[in-house]
Amino acid sequence: MNGRLTIVGLGPGPKDWVTPAAADAVADADYILGYSPYVNRLTPRAGQVFEASDNREELARARRALELAACGGRVAVVSGGDPGVFAMAAAVYEAVEDNPASADGIDIRVEPGVTAMLAAAARIGAPLGHDFCAISLSDNLKSWATIEKRLRLAAEADFVIALYNPASKARPEQIGKAFDILLEVLPGETLVVFARAVGRLDEEIDVVTLATAGDATCDMRTLVLIGSRATRKVISGDGRSWVYTPRSERK
Amino acid sequence: MNGRLTIVGLGPGPKDWVTPAAADAVADADYILGYSPYVNRLTPRAGQVFEASDNREELARARRALELAACGGRVAVVSGGDPGVFAMAAAVYEAVEDNPASADGIDIRVEPGVTAMLAAAARIGAPLGHDFCAISLSDNLKSWATIEKRLRLAAEADFVIALYNPASKARPEQIGKAFDILLEVLPGETLVVFARAVGRLDEEIDVVTLATAGDATCDMRTLVLIGSRATRKVISGDGRSWVYTPRSERK
Repeated sequence: MNGRLTIVGLGPGPKDWVTPAAADAVADADYILGYSPYVNRLTPRAGQVFEASDNREELARARRALELAACGGRVAVVSGGDPGVFAMAAAVYEAVEDNPASADGIDIRVEPGVTAMLAAAARIGAPLGHDFCAISLSDNLKSWATIEKRLRLAAEADFVIALYNPASKARPEQIGKAFDILLEVLPGETLVVFARAVGRLDEEIDVVTLATAGDATCDMRTLVLIGSRATRKVISGDGRSWVYTPRSERK
Repeated sequence: MNGRLTIVGLGPGPKDWVTPAAADAVADADYILGYSPYVNRLTPRAGQVFEASDNREELARARRALELAACGGRVAVVSGGDPGVFAMAAAVYEAVEDNPASADGIDIRVEPGVTAMLAAAARIGAPLGHDFCAISLSDNLKSWATIEKRLRLAAEADFVIALYNPASKARPEQIGKAFDILLEVLPGETLVVFARAVGRLDEEIDVVTLATAGDATCDMRTLVLIGSRATRKVISGDGRSWVYTPRSERK
């Protein structure tokens, strides 16, 4: 083997949500590549090279990582959350598919992490307690028609739905369109959780209903969870509340 | 607050996939409750009480945890993987719903973990690189008709599908029925990954096609991933192969 390329999941943000295996992969690397906000979470040790780049440069970053590893480097490509969920692992394998020889002799590994929907769910209760799906709302890489079809079928299947990349500056209005489509299938009282910056100092979690969800604001740091027909609030005797989906459909 | 109840995700198995936050929650607890195989992963410190119980006793375990916390105990309920995915977090909130006063004054938290599908995906490449869903195949808690409907809609939506609890001694044949349903919608060459005991010494990963998947054996320690129409093998110049789903539908 020439070099090593590990695609590492750093979790949603806090250090104590980074697995020891992910921390080891970062500590062990000569080169750390990634989108700036993720690279900036780390502190370089002596001899480490940090290469931060923009969000839209995933494929270029993947190629660069393969090149560095082909020259014998120990390379870590870092993602927030889990690297296999709407993140860098797929970009690296795309680069390998485009140029199979670029991977020759390189030990390629993926180090899993806590993905955003798990952390968001943990903060509010157990909304993912039953069957669920994850959909990226970004139409950079797929058509809006595909997104619309998947939203409709997911609602018909009564999955809890986790929406990644719900909005960006370039497309602030799509999340509203998504709620409108879901409202064609799901009742207005369906619970919707907006989980922003989970695990950070500015964390903010709001629970609303699908009928009013269009009025909420969200950005790229927000994870949106839309309940199934079974998802509900549970309230303790002393008035605190959580959102959960029962394990049993007979509950 | 009287006591504390933390529902903790221990990840798929290895210690280096346990987050520091989860490890701290376990170390800090007076009582550790859980299904025996998960409790048995831990080493008690002086003064800790371990209460292991059977798989089918989730609700009784949740009630017991609330009782211990109501008496002032610091209680950790442990799950493998993530506690919010087909695991103990939903069971605890079910117990609270049944008896709201049982949660009074208790600080209830969920500590997320790496869930099985993320670890399985990491081992084989990036099969969850695009939209996906997670379905539990256990019909203890829902009807087979619901499972069948969800499988069909998930295949129509072209989600990558993660099947949790694909088989048990009591229902060895359901996974075959699930493949038959998926074959009504998806092509026979759709890739299927059987990931058994991921992260353990006896880890075993097999990649087959949907047309032949019915011949494979699987058990409660297996996670099954069924590709979307876009999921494919990628092969390096030196002949190693991985399974991945491109980020873009135009790829």
